[in-house]
Amino acid sequence: MLRPMGKPPSKKIEFHPIGIVHSPFTSLDGMPIQPKGGAAAEGFVEVLAEYQAGLKDLDGFSHVILLYHFHQVSRVELAVRPFLDEEPRGIFATRAPTRPNPIGLSVVRLVRIEGRRVYLENIDILDGTPLLDIKPYVPQFDRPEDVRVGWLSGKTDQIGTKESDARFK
Amino acid sequence: MLRPMGKPPSKKIEFHPIGIVHSPFTSLDGMPIQPKGGAAAEGFVEVLAEYQAGLKDLDGFSHVILLYHFHQVSRVELAVRPFLDEEPRGIFATRAPTRPNPIGLSVVRLVRIEGRRVYLENIDILDGTPLLDIKPYVPQFDRPEDVRVGWLSGKTDQIGTKESDARFK
Repeated sequence: MLRPMGKPPSKKIEFHPIGIVHSPFTSLDGMPIQPKGGAAAEGFVEVLAEYQAGLKDLDGFSHVILLYHFHQVSRVELAVRPFLDEEPRGIFATRAPTRPNPIGLSVVRLVRIEGRRVYLENIDILDGTPLLDIKPYVPQFDRPEDVRVGWLSGKTDQIGTKESDARFK
Repeated sequence: MLRPMGKPPSKKIEFHPIGIVHSPFTSLDGMPIQPKGGAAAEGFVEVLAEYQAGLKDLDGFSHVILLYHFHQVSRVELAVRPFLDEEPRGIFATRAPTRPNPIGLSVVRLVRIEGRRVYLENIDILDGTPLLDIKPYVPQFDRPEDVRVGWLSGKTDQIGTKESDARFK
């Protein structure tokens, strides 16, 4: 049942942007490193006209999960030095963008929807980022209990003040 | 700055599986519809040998976010009747798989890591599903407060008993 070592499973998977992220952050330098760091930052995602019907009923939710393409990242690093640590960590134990599949994930507050635009608070995403998906945030699905955070223990209080730099560009 | 209506942004985005999901669920019929529904289900993801180094330090985390390809879904529906409701809802207000980019997301408990295998509890993913990413679950990033869940209000208590069927195949 298992694939032979090193043999990649079948084929590539193709996605297309469903829209674009609009934010105040036009450079990786100085960006918040997570939504909590960008408390003041408002922005919006605009979906393509062909997908607008898919936004129906989303306005009843207070928070959404955005998936997007880290489009300015051009390399993969399996060990990274994250913003919140000095030690190199395995890429899957971090949220750094130099992942084998550079997909970003942010949980953000939904402010309102106007036509094809979904206005958001606490956005931590580069302006012009291609949007891949919007999902409703549902505590019963997405909020586990008794959580441990490994190497991040005691470090997340720096989120509000740490800023991004160009290390992952 | 905004794209003309209906003009898709630039190009397609290509990803590759980083591994495969192994679970007891070999058919969409009878699967749990979310991790909470599959409390008894254990499984594992196996990453490709070339990505094993990226798992370093992940074992300190109690929960991970899995992103994967809904590979058995072959169509897009912008309005769907979800498992937990009778009304058609906009696809981006649901977690249904018939999304423009069929990317699935599950928050699951990490049990242990052995080599290239990450053993997981409460898995709600079809056996053989291509894995796209593993991210550590971090409450400070991923757990918003004062959450409202729109059309799902009062319906999520059925999660533990509702099962999947073939409607999204």
